[in-house]
Amino acid sequence: MEHPLFIFNTLSRKLEQFVPLHSPFVGMYVCGPTVYGDPHLGHARPAVTFDVLFRYLQHLGYKVRYVRNITDVGHLENDADHGEDKIAKKARLEQLEPMEVVQYYTDRYHYFMDQMNVKRPSIEPRASGHIIEQQEWIQQIINNGFAYVSNGSVYFDIEKYTQHFHYGKLSGRKLDDLLATTRELEGQHEKRHPFDFALWKKAAPEHIMRWRSPWSDGFPGWHLECSVMSTKYLGEVFDIHGGGMDLLFPHHECEIAQSVAASGKESVRYWIHNNLVTINGQKMGKSLGNFITLDELFNGKNSLLSKAFHPMVVRFFILQAHYRGTLDFSNEALLAAEKGYYRLMEAYQILNKIKPSPNTSPLSMEEYQQKCFEALNDDLNTPKVLAIFFELVKIINGAYQEIESLSEQNIQFIKDLYHTFIFEILGLLPIESQQSTNLLEKVMQILLDERMIARHRKDFETSDRIRQKLNNIGIEIKDTKTHTEWKII
Amino acid sequence: MEHPLFIFNTLSRKLEQFVPLHSPFVGMYVCGPTVYGDPHLGHARPAVTFDVLFRYLQHLGYKVRYVRNITDVGHLENDADHGEDKIAKKARLEQLEPMEVVQYYTDRYHYFMDQMNVKRPSIEPRASGHIIEQQEWIQQIINNGFAYVSNGSVYFDIEKYTQHFHYGKLSGRKLDDLLATTRELEGQHEKRHPFDFALWKKAAPEHIMRWRSPWSDGFPGWHLECSVMSTKYLGEVFDIHGGGMDLLFPHHECEIAQSVAASGKESVRYWIHNNLVTINGQKMGKSLGNFITLDELFNGKNSLLSKAFHPMVVRFFILQAHYRGTLDFSNEALLAAEKGYYRLMEAYQILNKIKPSPNTSPLSMEEYQQKCFEALNDDLNTPKVLAIFFELVKIINGAYQEIESLSEQNIQFIKDLYHTFIFEILGLLPIESQQSTNLLEKVMQILLDERMIARHRKDFETSDRIRQKLNNIGIEIKDTKTHTEWKII
Repeated sequence: MEHPLFIFNTLSRKLEQFVPLHSPFVGMYVCGPTVYGDPHLGHARPAVTFDVLFRYLQHLGYKVRYVRNITDVGHLENDADHGEDKIAKKARLEQLEPMEVVQYYTDRYHYFMDQMNVKRPSIEPRASGHIIEQQEWIQQIINNGFAYVSNGSVYFDIEKYTQHFHYGKLSGRKLDDLLATTRELEGQHEKRHPFDFALWKKAAPEHIMRWRSPWSDGFPGWHLECSVMSTKYLGEVFDIHGGGMDLLFPHHECEIAQSVAASGKESVRYWIHNNLVTINGQKMGKSLGNFITLDELFNGKNSLLSKAFHPMVVRFFILQAHYRGTLDFSNEALLAAEKGYYRLMEAYQILNKIKPSPNTSPLSMEEYQQKCFEALNDDLNTPKVLAIFFELVKIINGAYQEIESLSEQNIQFIKDLYHTFIFEILGLLPIESQQSTNLLEKVMQILLDERMIARHRKDFETSDRIRQKLNNIGIEIKDTKTHTEWKII
Repeated sequence: MEHPLFIFNTLSRKLEQFVPLHSPFVGMYVCGPTVYGDPHLGHARPAVTFDVLFRYLQHLGYKVRYVRNITDVGHLENDADHGEDKIAKKARLEQLEPMEVVQYYTDRYHYFMDQMNVKRPSIEPRASGHIIEQQEWIQQIINNGFAYVSNGSVYFDIEKYTQHFHYGKLSGRKLDDLLATTRELEGQHEKRHPFDFALWKKAAPEHIMRWRSPWSDGFPGWHLECSVMSTKYLGEVFDIHGGGMDLLFPHHECEIAQSVAASGKESVRYWIHNNLVTINGQKMGKSLGNFITLDELFNGKNSLLSKAFHPMVVRFFILQAHYRGTLDFSNEALLAAEKGYYRLMEAYQILNKIKPSPNTSPLSMEEYQQKCFEALNDDLNTPKVLAIFFELVKIINGAYQEIESLSEQNIQFIKDLYHTFIFEILGLLPIESQQSTNLLEKVMQILLDERMIARHRKDFETSDRIRQKLNNIGIEIKDTKTHTEWKII
């Protein structure tokens, strides 16, 4: 491929050129949601981050198989090996069948991701849909000597594993440190070592989501599904595994251990992690109770918000930060993002209204394109791309006020840049649907022309009446030297 | 419950009062799509039919758990026990992993059903997500003596079953007649009797979708998933099982046999079937190659269509026929439905413009409400409901032209009727979103008022210019005695 994309690999802790195993095919797996609550900003960030990577890889010509799972069983409270299944608990509290909870929140997740223009993955497998495959893996790991059965549950044997392999290579954690911070928890007595983790859990009698197995009626451990489903659909070794940084340890560390213990191979070539969303400097998360749902963001109903924000504004807000930096939420930051978003999109509209300069412009447009590609190739630097576009916005606005000049060709080139980078790769779209906006714009133009005709015949009664009536319905007009502008207030 | 709903039960072949097993809870299972192609009218009809039943039951106060499956494995060509899996074949032809085909067409199905305002079911289980449960059923049926293993596959033993139970009770088919019409097909030699059907199929070496089992690496038979998933989520006996009439035999007949053979009980209390969509009198179906996809209907790109039809028009078209009659597709029928739909929705808009009559109206509004409920209670007679509304449309239009009179109270009552029956239960919605329509309407009103002012001062140049300019952008205006109407052409 011609475009050298460099991306930060958490495993090597450095920027690496991205070279797929079987170009032009790319396999990408991203950890999806545990569907027991409404999606919040902490879900939107990885979804948007890897959506942009998905879009960019496709733009570069790769054929990407993008797998993002739905965790619908096995994810216990506090991400631990004991306690209640998150979905079963929600079902119990709301007196629903667990799969009703799963369906409802999966639909909600899809709905809100659609609103944010996040593309659907190629395959969206569910943990509960791959019980047999998970059982086969467990048997394989037992056969290879890296897991043991204890009271109907199966645990991964970390001590045995570390005799041969490096547990902690992704996260950099050391076993001794882990030992020091491990608490004595319920169910721990079944384990040989406190840091062993469950591959299969025997279900308590009241547990609804359960399947028969050689070891007990039970359910798979949470870490297992991602190993099993990623390799089922992408192969034993594949290109990219993504997710939020909060999943780095223990979830992704355990995935590596599972793959190596089952097949002797590490599956993932590039581990990519987005950083967290913070609120007042603290991680935002459902388990921490300080999260803002996307529903609240989009309808404004949260005491931290002064107003509702459009999904495209939230997407813009996420893309304004580099994915490896923290994204600190505040109402002010969103207001600023909203202003930026509209400035960006208004400039695109203004492109159609600029009087092209007949002179050849001195601007080198190819340079802007080049800089955008360089930014994306430098570890997907989306804030840099936006900064480059705001340089263009200045030029566009200048040309509109006729203090800069743009040729017909320049204008077309900038439109193409918008289409490639803003709409296609960053996935930001103008807010109103083209059709209804168009008709309203056309009718407004007729009305404003009539007003201008009235002014020309000195009929200021009519022109003032039209202005006043528009104002009454929430449309403000402003006369400039050459034309009349209007906006919805 | 106060509202006696009568519904036609295919099993008893008569109208029966609907009395749920555990009121106010209702369990409803409907056969969903096999996701290997774009949804067409033949998919839209059951989806809309059972959506209306779902909505009506909810309106009556029932708490409905609605389960609709996704068939993503095991459905072989020609609905038979031999040949290629429909999804695997599509994947092979398009060089995709089968689950990519499943994901793509599941997303497409959801997208188009959303367009048609079909509510999502409470649970949408996938066949591939319930392999263990299906294997447990097979083992149970074998243990009970109603199935046998043959060359790694497992077949249901119809002859053994008919010694104890009635195979054909739902469809009215007789085994002798079946024998006479059964052809000698590939794989038939494994069966003891030609009408035995597969519960488990041993996978050919090239078959991708396969799971280990006590009998062979293979996949479940198509009929099994619905028995297993309906009872898993709704209980051993539940209220309603719906689907298209084309599924009555053998699919639903086999479901009954499977339930009885496994548990000794028939699961379903009310079998409800919608009739087929025909095109020139012939069934429309993917396997027949004469289908029109929803995508084509909505964008007009099919040689049988003169134009694109809005999803709400297609929904209206489906509801204009009773669900147990055939629905014959033609472009003319859709054009007529479009006219009817707009007439219905325009009348609702006009309600806001009527000058209320101060006199008490002689109309008994409660009577209309009563008649609508009677129509729905009479086997979900949606065309009757629409006919009642068209009586109201006449009155609304008459009141607008001031040849009939409606009191303020009448107008509010009619609005309430629209909300209950048209929007909530039939699920028909006005086409444009309220907000953008409103602004356009307001601006249009200002412009038309200006035109009227110009006419009053005999400035016909201005009034004609405005008319002409509106015409140029596709808006037609028409002067009546009292006001000016406009519409988008």
